[in-house]
Amino acid sequence: MTASEAVTSALRGQAIELPSWAFGNSGTRFKVFPQAGVPRTPQEKIADAAQVHRYTGIAPSVALHIPWDTVDDYAQLADYARHLGVRLGTINSNVFQDNDYKLGSVTNPDPRVRRKALDHLLECVDIMDATGSRDLKLWFADGTNYPGQDDIRARQDRLAEALAAVYERLGPNQRMLLEYKLFEPAFYTTDVPDWGTAYAHCLKLGDKAQVVVDTGHHAPGTNIEFIVAFLLRENKLGGFDFNSRFYADDDLMVGAADPFQLFRIMYEVVRGGGYAPEAGIAFMLDQCHNIEPKIPGQIRSVLNAQEATAKALLVDTEALEQAQRAGDVLGANAVLMDAYNTDVRPMLAQLREQQGLDADPMAAFAASGYAEKIAADRVGGEQAGWGA
Amino acid sequence: MTASEAVTSALRGQAIELPSWAFGNSGTRFKVFPQAGVPRTPQEKIADAAQVHRYTGIAPSVALHIPWDTVDDYAQLADYARHLGVRLGTINSNVFQDNDYKLGSVTNPDPRVRRKALDHLLECVDIMDATGSRDLKLWFADGTNYPGQDDIRARQDRLAEALAAVYERLGPNQRMLLEYKLFEPAFYTTDVPDWGTAYAHCLKLGDKAQVVVDTGHHAPGTNIEFIVAFLLRENKLGGFDFNSRFYADDDLMVGAADPFQLFRIMYEVVRGGGYAPEAGIAFMLDQCHNIEPKIPGQIRSVLNAQEATAKALLVDTEALEQAQRAGDVLGANAVLMDAYNTDVRPMLAQLREQQGLDADPMAAFAASGYAEKIAADRVGGEQAGWGA
Amino acid sequence: MTASEAVTSALRGQAIELPSWAFGNSGTRFKVFPQAGVPRTPQEKIADAAQVHRYTGIAPSVALHIPWDTVDDYAQLADYARHLGVRLGTINSNVFQDNDYKLGSVTNPDPRVRRKALDHLLECVDIMDATGSRDLKLWFADGTNYPGQDDIRARQDRLAEALAAVYERLGPNQRMLLEYKLFEPAFYTTDVPDWGTAYAHCLKLGDKAQVVVDTGHHAPGTNIEFIVAFLLRENKLGGFDFNSRFYADDDLMVGAADPFQLFRIMYEVVRGGGYAPEAGIAFMLDQCHNIEPKIPGQIRSVLNAQEATAKALLVDTEALEQAQRAGDVLGANAVLMDAYNTDVRPMLAQLREQQGLDADPMAAFAASGYAEKIAADRVGGEQAGWGA
Amino acid sequence: MTASEAVTSALRGQAIELPSWAFGNSGTRFKVFPQAGVPRTPQEKIADAAQVHRYTGIAPSVALHIPWDTVDDYAQLADYARHLGVRLGTINSNVFQDNDYKLGSVTNPDPRVRRKALDHLLECVDIMDATGSRDLKLWFADGTNYPGQDDIRARQDRLAEALAAVYERLGPNQRMLLEYKLFEPAFYTTDVPDWGTAYAHCLKLGDKAQVVVDTGHHAPGTNIEFIVAFLLRENKLGGFDFNSRFYADDDLMVGAADPFQLFRIMYEVVRGGGYAPEAGIAFMLDQCHNIEPKIPGQIRSVLNAQEATAKALLVDTEALEQAQRAGDVLGANAVLMDAYNTDVRPMLAQLREQQGLDADPMAAFAASGYAEKIAADRVGGEQAGWGA
Repeated sequence: MTASEAVTSALRGQAIELPSWAFGNSGTRFKVFPQAGVPRTPQEKIADAAQVHRYTGIAPSVALHIPWDTVDDYAQLADYARHLGVRLGTINSNVFQDNDYKLGSVTNPDPRVRRKALDHLLECVDIMDATGSRDLKLWFADGTNYPGQDDIRARQDRLAEALAAVYERLGPNQRMLLEYKLFEPAFYTTDVPDWGTAYAHCLKLGDKAQVVVDTGHHAPGTNIEFIVAFLLRENKLGGFDFNSRFYADDDLMVGAADPFQLFRIMYEVVRGGGYAPEAGIAFMLDQCHNIEPKIPGQIRSVLNAQEATAKALLVDTEALEQAQRAGDVLGANAVLMDAYNTDVRPMLAQLREQQGLDADPMAAFAASGYAEKIAADRVGGEQAGWGA
Repeated sequence: MTASEAVTSALRGQAIELPSWAFGNSGTRFKVFPQAGVPRTPQEKIADAAQVHRYTGIAPSVALHIPWDTVDDYAQLADYARHLGVRLGTINSNVFQDNDYKLGSVTNPDPRVRRKALDHLLECVDIMDATGSRDLKLWFADGTNYPGQDDIRARQDRLAEALAAVYERLGPNQRMLLEYKLFEPAFYTTDVPDWGTAYAHCLKLGDKAQVVVDTGHHAPGTNIEFIVAFLLRENKLGGFDFNSRFYADDDLMVGAADPFQLFRIMYEVVRGGGYAPEAGIAFMLDQCHNIEPKIPGQIRSVLNAQEATAKALLVDTEALEQAQRAGDVLGANAVLMDAYNTDVRPMLAQLREQQGLDADPMAAFAASGYAEKIAADRVGGEQAGWGA
Repeated sequence: MTASEAVTSALRGQAIELPSWAFGNSGTRFKVFPQAGVPRTPQEKIADAAQVHRYTGIAPSVALHIPWDTVDDYAQLADYARHLGVRLGTINSNVFQDNDYKLGSVTNPDPRVRRKALDHLLECVDIMDATGSRDLKLWFADGTNYPGQDDIRARQDRLAEALAAVYERLGPNQRMLLEYKLFEPAFYTTDVPDWGTAYAHCLKLGDKAQVVVDTGHHAPGTNIEFIVAFLLRENKLGGFDFNSRFYADDDLMVGAADPFQLFRIMYEVVRGGGYAPEAGIAFMLDQCHNIEPKIPGQIRSVLNAQEATAKALLVDTEALEQAQRAGDVLGANAVLMDAYNTDVRPMLAQLREQQGLDADPMAAFAASGYAEKIAADRVGGEQAGWGA
Repeated sequence: MTASEAVTSALRGQAIELPSWAFGNSGTRFKVFPQAGVPRTPQEKIADAAQVHRYTGIAPSVALHIPWDTVDDYAQLADYARHLGVRLGTINSNVFQDNDYKLGSVTNPDPRVRRKALDHLLECVDIMDATGSRDLKLWFADGTNYPGQDDIRARQDRLAEALAAVYERLGPNQRMLLEYKLFEPAFYTTDVPDWGTAYAHCLKLGDKAQVVVDTGHHAPGTNIEFIVAFLLRENKLGGFDFNSRFYADDDLMVGAADPFQLFRIMYEVVRGGGYAPEAGIAFMLDQCHNIEPKIPGQIRSVLNAQEATAKALLVDTEALEQAQRAGDVLGANAVLMDAYNTDVRPMLAQLREQQGLDADPMAAFAASGYAEKIAADRVGGEQAGWGA
């Protein structure tokens, strides 16, 4: 197999998971702008996600958010997804939207609220059993807004207790992915603010607890690819929530704000063995298409991730290692940049055609009439959204 | 008049404007937590604001947000406020919540939307005529999320055109205050992102256009007191939107995150002559009490601002200037810190008692039973909020 | 002329100015690592700069730093440069390295120090007369480290006074470029911390005072291309100090940290008419090659700037404008990204060959033996450096 | 013992370690401004440090930097210190100033350089044996400036190997403190960039490896007190390098930039049991007095730390816990702020007088004539500095 064939082969196996909520309405605290054709049910979200897979070929699964995607029969929902050519993926818990959670969920000073939050998390594992999902993604909005508001350490104790209870409940083929975030919605302390905190908790829990990196959840200036490399070295990287940002957790389309950063991240994934299927890394999108149309926004994001991956795979690792070992700063940098500066779009177009896909997924979807159809069909009912 | 009497006298004249929207529900894109007793009408908001003035004695006016505070008869609303011991203040325009504004208001590429936004701004001046308000506060959510989305320069042209039209409409005793903000809700470009942009536009418009500094709207590391000093030197500081933040536009209670910064800002205000009534600086709060009760949250904020002001007034300016001129780095710093480290609470308690107020506004309000009363009375109807 | 020919023609006219000090030793406060062959004299710096021009064809001038590049006879130095195929460019003033400047130069509380600093600036104009330089670049390290240390406003008065005196001294074809920087070496206030401050001063001075944008001098999250677009619209952009950074003023090779940002900046330059020779924008590098070899570091930087420019020129402005006007968020973004994603290296290699240059400047310089020659020849004497 | 007596008693036991290098010249890459009377030898640095202890009573030890403070006979140096009323403290290793370290020390791609760096670290433990020091502080300037320059993961392997070798060498009563820093002098990756990285390495090494928190080494917006609380909960907080900053690693006097943050940090120290002597936390200063006089700068810093500690000890923990448990956001915040807003200076003045010290250390030192004496005496020789 030539180097080029190896790259193509690796790209063929790529799988990016789509978030069901990216197809619903989203916005900022200032305004949520509704869009025509937005899904009203989990089924409609899955149908839209299936479109993304149909045109890109590398988005075979859909993550659910509970309770946003609550249904009576998850097995049936899984069947429905299969029927559309995709499958159900990660289960995302939501313990930030009940009025009880104003001062926190699993870290709330009130034991009744903590119990309620924990019950929700356990219920999510029940749903995983029904959907056959491997991963439970835990993001906690928990934190405080004012110095003194609550005890930082006591909240860690409560967090550890809840995580242990969920961990106990996991089945043999299930994992929990703990997400960290610097701030928002909490504005003074966040109970899992950085990778170190998530890592320390996961380490104590065991092998089925892994850290998930949301690319928009860091302090300004944080070197994300370093974290990726470090967690891979520690066997503690569970997955990604991809998106991009210029400022805070902007949740823009991945690759839109800093495509070079995305490339560097993907390079470290490849370098650290994280791209191999057996590594079990979950590559997920987590974005808000506040002003752009949802389905094309997801297609563009998947393509951006694919292009960055292709470039990462193109790096001449032998030449790179040689330059690094020689202390050749400019030479080593040049090897990396050579891959980044390559226009991989022709190669990816060809790959698609080999797979029976349209060379240009954006154009193909636009030409399909699907957007017009759902705008016409989905009249009445309540459009899905975050329900803030 | 002794130095101490001068400080007391200056504090007696302090006036901080409250935002009507701080009494309604607010939150983040993840969740708005409702609170019992929250106002349902502009009248109820004003009634709550009057409570803050009743216990602090330095919050005599209330800013309105249009259309959140739209009423049929503004003169009647002004009467109602007067009857409660306060008056109507700044009119805040809102051109970010109509579906038409998804890609901007006055900078929208569509001329129809621009016209609609401008009409709203002009209507706000009509309301100012009715309420007798001096200031129109302009904050634009306008910007773009993606590189290339719109033309940065063309948007400036459109902005300038709209501002000029509003400026033309102002009465002889009316001003427009242009607010800037780094990001949110726009995540790539914001059309008025920094003080320099606001300043440049105001300079061209004329004396009735002034810059307003929202303390939460800056890039990390920005020295806000420098901006205050600079704008005062240029006679272009129109006012403040006070709040505090640890990360982005957190909109926490002013003085809660960095009381030393608030003191430094107030020192520059005093230093630059901005505290004198004739300077016409509008001192306003603009905050979100997402998790703390609204009225006590406003009282605490007013007290925090008052304490910072008292400390700023206590600076021994003669000793400071002498140390500065001598290049005595530590000596000059010590003079400033001496004022900051002073516990001004006893002095302020005494001042309140001299004015017939309770020495402890927080305790007095808590003991008043007002919170319990509104929680019991305000049943039914729709609680005010941002309506995102 | 086809679109492609127009791009090539525009690229042919590109001119990037090199800083003489980039060829000397540089480092951080922790360590300056010396390199073999580093110049010991202004002449040797110019000789090295000429090498960069020799292989890139677009670096025809060298900026001087006074007193680092002080010589007895500037006309002779200019002749020497011409003889090597380059010319002397911008004169950079240095009022931060004399012991007297500990508390500032032109803003120092001590009038004697201010006078000394002003005299240096005026002497720099004398040198401009001798070298035939058009631009005087003014960067002030002035500021304070501690709150209270000096009076913010008084320092602005002193700054304004000095700038006015220098402005008066400028000849009819001379300009002053005022540079801003958020922090370092001052750590509390900086007297020209942002573009707004520089702009306001330049506006008062007149047409010969322009703002210079150093791409490493902003707060985290600042949108630099917005500033570029804004200053161009105001006819107040005088030039650039190009470099790149991940954190603060890292002074890395331009395009190394965020090539997409560099592209966006160059796009706004082109869009705003700043790329036209008659716009008079000075495109300068200002970098530290702390660990990489100096000459190749400059060549790489020039190539990075050239590639970004080529991509910016490739943007299909008609398609872009159409998408923008239509409010097509994804479409407009795609037009911009299409240019960015293009691999322009073959086109630039071809352009070089048409100009009689080697297609690969890095390889050609490496093969030339120049680096080995200067390492062998430049023995003894004192290597040039910042002299901190 | 009353609450007040408990506070006083706790304050009596406070011990802050001074860095020898704070008495030498320091600056930025732009300029080091020398000061009169600056020490030329380790002995003179210790003599100056002893002055700080003499007037504050809570600075009984001095940290050394090797090789800056290399002497022939460390036992003799320890005697000398004892004679002056202080003792030698932490040993700081320096593996960033040899020309060999351009691309790193223990993570250098070249095994020869790694060996050299490790030998230096081991030599530092030898010195600890001689001085009787408990702690070896490890800060590595190691990192890369350009993407691709070196392999992130391989550098972690090399780091782990070196740390293990040093750990092995530690005596039974010795510890190693691993320091992290976001950036500078490395500008792309740093090999120990955050607390998570330091924590993960220390965890693997064992109980004698602990994390040290330098308050100036974080990304903007990082909540340092959270890290302190977390590390204390994990028994992995070894000590502090105190200083303050507005922007990056400004190394200003502790408490100068954000006294409220310092208070919050000290509150978490007290809360987590870290203030108790048996906790073994090393409270050290690490600052640069670039423009202020060195000894007064250290005295002021020690006083700032003392004031913050006094306020932290004054927090009514019972009332705080009650409010926290009740979910009383404003009440809990008010308890904390009540302590912060207290003017503790009279209490501390009284404490000093009880201890036979002058109530005002700054004034007492100024009146002592020591500064004038060293300026007159220390003529000739080479002033100590960082030697960059």
